[in-house]
Amino acid sequence: MQVFNMPTAEILTIGSELIEGLRVNTNATWLAKKLTSAGILVKSITSTGDITSEIVAAIQDALRRAPDVLIITGGLGPTPDDKTCEALARATGRKLVLDTAALELVKMSYVRLRTHLIDHKALPTIQKKMACIPEGATALPNPVGLAPGTKLKHGKTLAICLPGVPAEMRAIFTKYVYGDLLKLGGRAPHGETVNVEKIDEMTLAPFLEELAQKFPHVDIRSYPSGKGKKSRVRVVFVAPKAIDAQDAAMAFKASLKRLRHSLTS
Amino acid sequence: MQVFNMPTAEILTIGSELIEGLRVNTNATWLAKKLTSAGILVKSITSTGDITSEIVAAIQDALRRAPDVLIITGGLGPTPDDKTCEALARATGRKLVLDTAALELVKMSYVRLRTHLIDHKALPTIQKKMACIPEGATALPNPVGLAPGTKLKHGKTLAICLPGVPAEMRAIFTKYVYGDLLKLGGRAPHGETVNVEKIDEMTLAPFLEELAQKFPHVDIRSYPSGKGKKSRVRVVFVAPKAIDAQDAAMAFKASLKRLRHSLTS
Repeated sequence: MQVFNMPTAEILTIGSELIEGLRVNTNATWLAKKLTSAGILVKSITSTGDITSEIVAAIQDALRRAPDVLIITGGLGPTPDDKTCEALARATGRKLVLDTAALELVKMSYVRLRTHLIDHKALPTIQKKMACIPEGATALPNPVGLAPGTKLKHGKTLAICLPGVPAEMRAIFTKYVYGDLLKLGGRAPHGETVNVEKIDEMTLAPFLEELAQKFPHVDIRSYPSGKGKKSRVRVVFVAPKAIDAQDAAMAFKASLKRLRHSLTS
Repeated sequence: MQVFNMPTAEILTIGSELIEGLRVNTNATWLAKKLTSAGILVKSITSTGDITSEIVAAIQDALRRAPDVLIITGGLGPTPDDKTCEALARATGRKLVLDTAALELVKMSYVRLRTHLIDHKALPTIQKKMACIPEGATALPNPVGLAPGTKLKHGKTLAICLPGVPAEMRAIFTKYVYGDLLKLGGRAPHGETVNVEKIDEMTLAPFLEELAQKFPHVDIRSYPSGKGKKSRVRVVFVAPKAIDAQDAAMAFKASLKRLRHSLTS
């Protein structure tokens, strides 16, 4: 079912540590929650390793599906495994150019952050690496770390690159991205939650199936947990209109009451 | 860089709670770690919502990339938001058929698990829903919950569906999937880790860049954390041969020693 007329987003998280199971992808969860709260429908989350060709392919796949927003995290730093800007340039057929505003941001962050370490002869090269962004992109200041974020409008899609370090990702997103997304976002769908204790999903399934037939505009989701006598199910009714979600939840509560009665009689 | 000649896998995790940021995707991390330890290269992890057309598209995209293994989690239960088997059937152009072995498994699980709840007239329908799998697929017993897993060879790819409930997913994977994957898996790449305290990624970047040039077969990854005087970087050297990873790590340690010397002098 796809009943929501909302702007769409995809999230692409880059990092070999993610696809090798060395790090739980909390960035994706955080971003997904933020986007959803802004009234943007997240259609998919993808993780890929630090391999340029695979990042390019993942970006191209996402752009082909033309979401309104594509958020990419990871791979913006100074080291050889940071390849996101290069991949975004390739995926969108743009040149990777040294952006003077981005270079200024990197230099300022460098001065702000480096209080105890020496300069190094290769420093300008490394600073320039972080200031090279796809032609037409805008650099976003990083209030916490070194690498700036970038935003780039490509076709219908606003592509935003953020660092993989959670504190940096959150800081740039909160300060320079979220406001734009709130303007873009539609109305988030309404949700009604009913928690049912001491019951398993299978017992509820026929009732939920009936409700799904009766309320075709309501997205009915059930999340089982526990087992045996500790079985419980959280049922969520999601709909574009509050009244639809409430109606479905009320109908569910009524059938639940009948079920409880038959269980105890 | 892609220097590893290993069998490949993709992971597809299904659930609206994932793409709305309501649940952290620990299933993907757990599976990715298991696959990596079995010598299988995880190429990507994708999450999608409980929408049949989007699950079908995600499965078809994955099959087009033809990984050796495709693990799909979520959407196998009895409720209307469980759509994975139907989507797998559609994505592979197969019929969804009632599998007698799967039905037997569901009935057995039902007897085993249900000690306190009544039968319901719609029960056979619900049991059958969980026993409908794509033609040619094999049902995998669920030692913990109700819904069986399935495995299906499609073209080059072994597609495996597991429930989204973590305990069920892990139980089926451990008992009925991991053994096959160990047989399929190649040799996992070797990794050498060097933790560097009181340094930031930017200071290390030129050295890592030099090493990347010198050791083209080594995948050099750096994970920065902390800031200011608490900056630290974990550097991991990954290579098909242990000797390559060790050589790169030793060369890195030598340049680090010179750097430390210049920092303190």
